[in-house]
Amino acid sequence: MATLKYKKPSPYVVPAAGCPPEDTKYQEYEKNLELSTVGKHQKFGFALFGVGRAGTIHLSFLIKEPKTDLLYVIDDDKTKLEKLKKYWNLESVKFLTNAESDVAFKDPRVRAVVISSPTHTHEDIVTKALSHNKGVFCEKPVAENLAQTKLLYDKAKQVKQPLFSAFNRRFDPSFASIRNRVRAGDVGRVLTVKVCSRDSPLPTIQYLSTSGGIFHDCAVHDIDMTLYILGEYPTKVTVAANANIPEIAEINDYDTVGIMLSFASGAIGIIDLSRHSTYGYDQRVEVFGQKGMIKAENRQPIYNVETYTERDVVRAPIHYSFPSRYQEGYENEMRHFLEVLEGKTSLSIDTKDVLAVSKIATACEESVRTGNSVEIKWSKDELPHPQ
Amino acid sequence: MATLKYKKPSPYVVPAAGCPPEDTKYQEYEKNLELSTVGKHQKFGFALFGVGRAGTIHLSFLIKEPKTDLLYVIDDDKTKLEKLKKYWNLESVKFLTNAESDVAFKDPRVRAVVISSPTHTHEDIVTKALSHNKGVFCEKPVAENLAQTKLLYDKAKQVKQPLFSAFNRRFDPSFASIRNRVRAGDVGRVLTVKVCSRDSPLPTIQYLSTSGGIFHDCAVHDIDMTLYILGEYPTKVTVAANANIPEIAEINDYDTVGIMLSFASGAIGIIDLSRHSTYGYDQRVEVFGQKGMIKAENRQPIYNVETYTERDVVRAPIHYSFPSRYQEGYENEMRHFLEVLEGKTSLSIDTKDVLAVSKIATACEESVRTGNSVEIKWSKDELPHPQ
Amino acid sequence: MATLKYKKPSPYVVPAAGCPPEDTKYQEYEKNLELSTVGKHQKFGFALFGVGRAGTIHLSFLIKEPKTDLLYVIDDDKTKLEKLKKYWNLESVKFLTNAESDVAFKDPRVRAVVISSPTHTHEDIVTKALSHNKGVFCEKPVAENLAQTKLLYDKAKQVKQPLFSAFNRRFDPSFASIRNRVRAGDVGRVLTVKVCSRDSPLPTIQYLSTSGGIFHDCAVHDIDMTLYILGEYPTKVTVAANANIPEIAEINDYDTVGIMLSFASGAIGIIDLSRHSTYGYDQRVEVFGQKGMIKAENRQPIYNVETYTERDVVRAPIHYSFPSRYQEGYENEMRHFLEVLEGKTSLSIDTKDVLAVSKIATACEESVRTGNSVEIKWSKDELPHPQ
Amino acid sequence: MATLKYKKPSPYVVPAAGCPPEDTKYQEYEKNLELSTVGKHQKFGFALFGVGRAGTIHLSFLIKEPKTDLLYVIDDDKTKLEKLKKYWNLESVKFLTNAESDVAFKDPRVRAVVISSPTHTHEDIVTKALSHNKGVFCEKPVAENLAQTKLLYDKAKQVKQPLFSAFNRRFDPSFASIRNRVRAGDVGRVLTVKVCSRDSPLPTIQYLSTSGGIFHDCAVHDIDMTLYILGEYPTKVTVAANANIPEIAEINDYDTVGIMLSFASGAIGIIDLSRHSTYGYDQRVEVFGQKGMIKAENRQPIYNVETYTERDVVRAPIHYSFPSRYQEGYENEMRHFLEVLEGKTSLSIDTKDVLAVSKIATACEESVRTGNSVEIKWSKDELPHPQ
Repeated sequence: MATLKYKKPSPYVVPAAGCPPEDTKYQEYEKNLELSTVGKHQKFGFALFGVGRAGTIHLSFLIKEPKTDLLYVIDDDKTKLEKLKKYWNLESVKFLTNAESDVAFKDPRVRAVVISSPTHTHEDIVTKALSHNKGVFCEKPVAENLAQTKLLYDKAKQVKQPLFSAFNRRFDPSFASIRNRVRAGDVGRVLTVKVCSRDSPLPTIQYLSTSGGIFHDCAVHDIDMTLYILGEYPTKVTVAANANIPEIAEINDYDTVGIMLSFASGAIGIIDLSRHSTYGYDQRVEVFGQKGMIKAENRQPIYNVETYTERDVVRAPIHYSFPSRYQEGYENEMRHFLEVLEGKTSLSIDTKDVLAVSKIATACEESVRTGNSVEIKWSKDELPHPQ
Repeated sequence: MATLKYKKPSPYVVPAAGCPPEDTKYQEYEKNLELSTVGKHQKFGFALFGVGRAGTIHLSFLIKEPKTDLLYVIDDDKTKLEKLKKYWNLESVKFLTNAESDVAFKDPRVRAVVISSPTHTHEDIVTKALSHNKGVFCEKPVAENLAQTKLLYDKAKQVKQPLFSAFNRRFDPSFASIRNRVRAGDVGRVLTVKVCSRDSPLPTIQYLSTSGGIFHDCAVHDIDMTLYILGEYPTKVTVAANANIPEIAEINDYDTVGIMLSFASGAIGIIDLSRHSTYGYDQRVEVFGQKGMIKAENRQPIYNVETYTERDVVRAPIHYSFPSRYQEGYENEMRHFLEVLEGKTSLSIDTKDVLAVSKIATACEESVRTGNSVEIKWSKDELPHPQ
Repeated sequence: MATLKYKKPSPYVVPAAGCPPEDTKYQEYEKNLELSTVGKHQKFGFALFGVGRAGTIHLSFLIKEPKTDLLYVIDDDKTKLEKLKKYWNLESVKFLTNAESDVAFKDPRVRAVVISSPTHTHEDIVTKALSHNKGVFCEKPVAENLAQTKLLYDKAKQVKQPLFSAFNRRFDPSFASIRNRVRAGDVGRVLTVKVCSRDSPLPTIQYLSTSGGIFHDCAVHDIDMTLYILGEYPTKVTVAANANIPEIAEINDYDTVGIMLSFASGAIGIIDLSRHSTYGYDQRVEVFGQKGMIKAENRQPIYNVETYTERDVVRAPIHYSFPSRYQEGYENEMRHFLEVLEGKTSLSIDTKDVLAVSKIATACEESVRTGNSVEIKWSKDELPHPQ
Repeated sequence: MATLKYKKPSPYVVPAAGCPPEDTKYQEYEKNLELSTVGKHQKFGFALFGVGRAGTIHLSFLIKEPKTDLLYVIDDDKTKLEKLKKYWNLESVKFLTNAESDVAFKDPRVRAVVISSPTHTHEDIVTKALSHNKGVFCEKPVAENLAQTKLLYDKAKQVKQPLFSAFNRRFDPSFASIRNRVRAGDVGRVLTVKVCSRDSPLPTIQYLSTSGGIFHDCAVHDIDMTLYILGEYPTKVTVAANANIPEIAEINDYDTVGIMLSFASGAIGIIDLSRHSTYGYDQRVEVFGQKGMIKAENRQPIYNVETYTERDVVRAPIHYSFPSRYQEGYENEMRHFLEVLEGKTSLSIDTKDVLAVSKIATACEESVRTGNSVEIKWSKDELPHPQ
């Protein structure tokens, strides 16, 4: 017999803390329909530093989100600012150069800053923002070395403001779903975690030469994903690294890397990454455990359409690059940051994880240099809180 | 040898007129990065009539889109309006009841209206809007019968304002991609078009009893999809229809329907639809031609994650309902309407198609009533323009 | 803690009566390893009539199967026989023309005959085989009309020999799995059954002109699949049929057909078929019920390999034709027939189904002729036994 | 316009040397239909040593294949032989114990032997077989150490008989397809090769304790697959290995292993393997190159059937174990061996590869023992012939 009631959402769509799965879009609509939700009455003023690749993504969010009020955009490229203003109809936004940025820091309407300027500028902006009691959303890395990073986190703790290091992949619904299912015991004790990560398109040599190298620029995301899933830090790392692209060899960096991590629990972590995948932005995660296996394959626009011909069966290529692949992740991490500002939740990325990831990336570099495995020692303070 | 340039978008992501594929999100970001785009300097004032299911979706778009300025929301449910105002922080929007709607019609800042109020109110609102030289975006059907619909389109033509009947599925990237590939000849001459469409969740009996019946409420979308792909109108229709749900039998409607359409070209159209799919909102299209076949399977949140166990291999269920399944279609149709207002393009949905779909739905009802096939005759005026 | 025992087969691989799923191959190996199975000590003598397309498939099985002893091959094409003899090293097989076939009928070592000769010869061979107390495995149709077919089944009953009409698709593991799951209630009460069936390659006009027409040659398989799943006979049928290929129009046959069946239970059956799919042998089944949906997509060689390029994601095409697509079905139906001869089971295809399918195909032809729906009446004797 | 001819096979189904893709089954049928093929007039006498797991698979092939005449089965388990005889109706086969095996070696009708007895017996049987001028098909390893293996290959060369080391995975159609496409340049220069290999079910401790350890028993297959695809030998290997199952720790073996290989070309090889996957026999291969990526996912019985419910979308689990997963590989490798005996082709597995794989497995063991990377040096003689 037919039921005439709305069914409850499936067990698959229970949102993770800070990481709602894709279908919560529907849930949001449903909530709107029911109008039972408490009002989004708080509106936070923002200043945005840097409108490069990530900055443009954040700009788009801050403009459209009813909870946010974009007050300042700070960047030294005035032509770019002019174009952005025109493109987005930004009448009420103030555009500043970095030299003029004090206006923004001193404006009490600015509740938080978003930092997506070049890496070498991060430390200074974070420091100023925290000094003015602003919340901070910062593209990784928060600072250029481990010691500075620790100091900034201490500062944040002291002024009681959130300092968010933007590991956007944690907020991807498919990866968050894997992590939640693994933590719920769906695959039993974890034996192997594999992360595959191949960039598209190949960044410019200009970008690469100031990127900090493939380990601190790219591998940190994959290392973070491994820790995020396992909740454990590795005791040993071995790296195989090659520069197959001559321009990359010239700047002493690598484009193709394999990383093997050993964990005290008996788990093995395997990461393979590349600076240049010609077939699109390849991002995959797999967790093998004593009770089963769970994996995330790539995402593709129009994934549901196939053409059948005499020659083959064809689908569209996978996502071309990070803006479309991680669109939801970018939105979800910003929404999480807003909820932290609202006091609804606390930061989901542990300071210890941010520091540990940086330490492991440095150990990777040592492994390449020495051509051997590198042991990683952790003090009690550095280890993650048990969950 | 490595190339250090950004690659051109793949042939799959060439946007169709008015129906950009999913990956244009990426293209938009890229454009932002390049800042080569002409400014979105026009901003259009809107009035929104009705904040039920579709209305809430449009409300969310109109609030977030930088090109639109939502001035009025008109609905007789004041409690709902109060909640919406609080939920979305709608300080600058004016809330009116239908009795007060003249304020909106007379406001010269209102460039267009969006109508998602109950069907029986459409004709009146469309008429008034057109009389005040507003553009009209109207949930289907534009009016309750064919004659009235024709009159409204004549009126629109006379006042030179767009009257857009919202067949949102045409703007779904996967279906638009199929249509474009079929029109480009990828499967050769079309022999069979199949559309499968099963609703989720089961609507309330209140809704169903005023919906106009499954043919005018649901099948019109599937008929429109068939015409959209084929560009041809059928000459004969046969319907098998059942009411398996007692409550639906009681209101003399049907919940499970098969429709077979014959076309002069030799193509056959097959539609199967249901009011109630328990496994999610099932929406599929398939086109078989002399050179191949192309089909769109269902879409699923987190479609790229699979769990492997001793028992089975499992993915999340398909989208639960239309708001998440057709989110992109809803956004794309509204963007198309904005481009029409900007004068960048003309309406992509032909008046003749809107009238033809209605005529075919009526023939379906006749086929059920008589238990036999029904021939459909078309005057020269009614037939689509050759493309 | 690890278990060191062999796990039990998954619930998916429980074999259906007469239709073992694909993984029973593994089970057979396992059984061999365990050597706990009773010996295959019986060996049956066979005569094979006709070595055309299906005949060659059966020939290959009868040669390789340890349970069968191929004694005679009867065909009037002597050159073909000579080639076959050489190709397969058939020293001990006797080759006869049809005129000489009495030798085979009279040989007491011949336990059963397999008939894959042209349709017009079936009735005569079946009659003779039954008269000589041989079991009969016959490609459909058993005879050229309903009355003759009934007489042959009566004869078989009288001499207590199996008369097997080879509906090979029932023995395909994927379709058998669907039927078993539907009968087990996995999708609840059935609302819609869809069968899609497109032939590849296009048969020769010689073949088509003596095939009996698309309804009796092709559609019977799809009609049978629908009855096999539902266990119910339709009360009404409507057909849309076109001849898009001129050569087929000339012989007054059709190449593209849609069939809609109505069942007393409220279920709707939808069949779409074609004589010519350029992208391979397209065979699909879908069952929609009140609790869910189950469907079989196409099968492909090397289905698990995908190539990712800048342009697309590509798999190999689906099976080219029936010999590779239904290889397992052909083997399984023959094994089922052997089990009937061994007395281990009874025929899984009900005589009533064979007769009903033929009656429905004839009603389809009437629907095309009249351009209207055709009601089908069933006497109590004709209806299936309740299950 | 319709073509009425049989179409040519698609480019996907061109058979590789010695490794026909799955759809050649169809091609074989087609050939039968055309009867244009030269006769299979040669029939080879065989002796089979050992009827354990692999032996039973080979037994089944040798019984059914028209080209082979199984004359002897040699095994010391008389009860097993008795059961096999009864199960398969083996009237004409002679069953011997190992002590009686000289009868088989001295029988001139025996053209070749198949060896699937325990590893420690291989060397002796291979030696005797070659001494009697028999061809040899031997389960890996051919002998227990590298020196012995070399001697046996020298002996084979001397007596001009094939000595085939059964790396069955090379003959799997999906992996062979990947290798052929990679060698054809479809993904450009290879940057990374990944092989994932997880056994199911967990073998017994009895088996494991005499297996030679996970590197020589399991990893050799994955190492061979890597060399097979790349055609290059590694210069360095690093291994991470754990024993998560206590019983395996007790016998000083490992159950979960990661292997990283470096190649002079700049390619990286990554292998992850496990002795125990609870979700089935997991076997995957992926090749990433400068122009694209190609990968083989797992194979599943009834892979084309999916069930959609309110909770999830479900398929059957992947193959349970090697007999069903590699059924085609086992058949193809035996067919290849027959073609070698017929003089139609030469052995597709190079002696150098067999020796190299063994050397690399030994280096893996050293890496685990030392906890560090191990360099592998190759003499000119050991390196593969350029292709």
